Amino acid sequence: MLLMIPGPVQLHERIIRAMARQMIGHRTADFSAIMEFCVEKLREIFGTKGDICLISGSGTAGMEAAIASFSRVKKIATLENGKFGERLGDIAERYTQVERVKVPWGESFELDAVKEALDNGCEAVAFVHNETSTGILNPAKEIAKLAKEYDALVIMDAITSAGGDYVKMDEWGVDVAIVGSQKCLGAPPGLAAVAVSEKAWDYYNERCPYYLDLAAYRKKLKDMQTPYTPAVPLFFALAEALKIIDEEGLENRIQRHRILSAAVRKWAVEAGLELFPNLNKYSSYSNTVTAIKMPEGVSDSELRGTLKKEYGILVSGGQGELKGKIFRIGTMGNVGKFETVSTLAALEDVLMRKNAIKPALQYAQILLRDLQ
Amino acid sequence: MLLMIPGPVQLHERIIRAMARQMIGHRTADFSAIMEFCVEKLREIFGTKGDICLISGSGTAGMEAAIASFSRVKKIATLENGKFGERLGDIAERYTQVERVKVPWGESFELDAVKEALDNGCEAVAFVHNETSTGILNPAKEIAKLAKEYDALVIMDAITSAGGDYVKMDEWGVDVAIVGSQKCLGAPPGLAAVAVSEKAWDYYNERCPYYLDLAAYRKKLKDMQTPYTPAVPLFFALAEALKIIDEEGLENRIQRHRILSAAVRKWAVEAGLELFPNLNKYSSYSNTVTAIKMPEGVSDSELRGTLKKEYGILVSGGQGELKGKIFRIGTMGNVGKFETVSTLAALEDVLMRKNAIKPALQYAQILLRDLQ
Repeated sequence: MLLMIPGPVQLHERIIRAMARQMIGHRTADFSAIMEFCVEKLREIFGTKGDICLISGSGTAGMEAAIASFSRVKKIATLENGKFGERLGDIAERYTQVERVKVPWGESFELDAVKEALDNGCEAVAFVHNETSTGILNPAKEIAKLAKEYDALVIMDAITSAGGDYVKMDEWGVDVAIVGSQKCLGAPPGLAAVAVSEKAWDYYNERCPYYLDLAAYRKKLKDMQTPYTPAVPLFFALAEALKIIDEEGLENRIQRHRILSAAVRKWAVEAGLELFPNLNKYSSYSNTVTAIKMPEGVSDSELRGTLKKEYGILVSGGQGELKGKIFRIGTMGNVGKFETVSTLAALEDVLMRKNAIKPALQYAQILLRDLQ
Repeated sequence: MLLMIPGPVQLHERIIRAMARQMIGHRTADFSAIMEFCVEKLREIFGTKGDICLISGSGTAGMEAAIASFSRVKKIATLENGKFGERLGDIAERYTQVERVKVPWGESFELDAVKEALDNGCEAVAFVHNETSTGILNPAKEIAKLAKEYDALVIMDAITSAGGDYVKMDEWGVDVAIVGSQKCLGAPPGLAAVAVSEKAWDYYNERCPYYLDLAAYRKKLKDMQTPYTPAVPLFFALAEALKIIDEEGLENRIQRHRILSAAVRKWAVEAGLELFPNLNKYSSYSNTVTAIKMPEGVSDSELRGTLKKEYGILVSGGQGELKGKIFRIGTMGNVGKFETVSTLAALEDVLMRKNAIKPALQYAQILLRDLQ
């Protein structure tokens, strides 16, 4: 099965092999060396000189660690235009007062709405950089800049952007950011990394969950260790994934992600399909996942079911209220031209048979011509 | 390096190979089938008909999920005679009022002390079954029986006992129990399972951490799914580890653990070493990890350092205040006669050179003779 979903992603064979190792003791120099390599590379990917806390858990564990550890604020604004934005709000409500800045899924934020929340006394802003559920890239730089005018803490879910798109924490003024292992980094699921600026510690809440208390991770980071037993095979895999990123070069990797997603969008539009996101002057299309409206007269099982059954390709459906209304193609991690063209060709076959589109593969292929 | 530490354990080659697989989508029937197998086998190992919540995270994540999810109690008693008992207390203090029933590390509880806590109004009791830091097996059955006389909730950390020693939740009256993947189950670290009785839900606290909220895990269990992206390669490994347990037979496996640890203890005593635990009529020696006092005139680095350097065998030192005062030999998971005898032979060589013991390997070997 070819995974063209927004994570977990298809694994490079080197990453598969990296896990097939005998266990090592985790309180050893061998483990610390692996961890040190991961920390250094993740600093580059996050664009920060801050601490990198590596948590054995899903991206959601990382989101909660980021919010809960730094929840000593009167009020936090959570910006919500999709499933993961809403999750930030749901998590934050367990720790502090929350102003939930909501627009419908697929819509874009107006910066005025963020400004209003800050005027209302929010001391922190949490938002999702790349909203996987809707295929929108939210304007991280602009949100952070605005929040900084109020000296507010900025927490950014970069789970599906870091490693595949630009993330420049220190330059943009983002204090806390999170990435998941199974997205653009190309590793298997099970690890989350949280990058933390010095400023964030002013908001440290010692009543956060024990397992997700980033102060404990920071303390152990001095020895390149984790406070609790790490998921060792996933560290083997993450280190190999980061080596692959290093070899490709982060800038090349980001450009590859941009070209792949541009090709998917070009195909969709030329085929007569409609992209789901409703953009404004701040937002853009995601460069790692493309959300497309389900054409009329085609059901989710006719599209995704047939694709899976006949071609062995898995793309994602809509989540929550978007179930059956959109489908989503992930172009994350180590997938390339081959996987992307194969997926579009298969989709074209399935949708042509339903008379739902016109042929458009060539448009995508032209865009991909220069990609090695 | 041969790992003879109390987790992570040496991996069976079948478990290593199980991880070397391409990623699969986690919201698929393929994943659910793997999860269903794990849930069924873990029910047998825990001795329960209750729910099994599988968390991507370390054993500590499981401990916190168990305590936080069921913390709607006036007061909880945490029984502490080692590092992990103290951790239960540290976690519980983040959620409710706690009565910490403490004895020095390596000492055993008197049931009267537990009774006193219950008389003082504790509505829940949390304790560690097998205290890895000191090598003591606490009297689970007796503690649970006493707590049940007060209709109190019983939470048991079975992280290093389940799969290697008897755990009979339903029979003993234990409401919530936790196991870690990397101990007696023989899998790599990174997963925790929490088994939950119906009664526990009377104590459900909706203000527990989002990631560790067992109600979310229970809800998804109906579809054999997890609420957040699972660490898929670790599920591959756990399923293989549980297949191995199934083939060996749980009763055979427990007897093997008992014989291996008895052989380690026999060797230590006949060699003139002293076991660390101070037992009373309720407690016993752990059947999965043996804690031995460091002989006079031998330093931690002389013992563990030499063993590691010359033989490539890793045993554990003491934790916290016990650093340099004890060493600990794990005989957990899929290690057998070969690994155990090799370790004792190596230790004997190292300690004989320091004139710290007399030869005793034969005593262990006699005990191990019938083990295949």
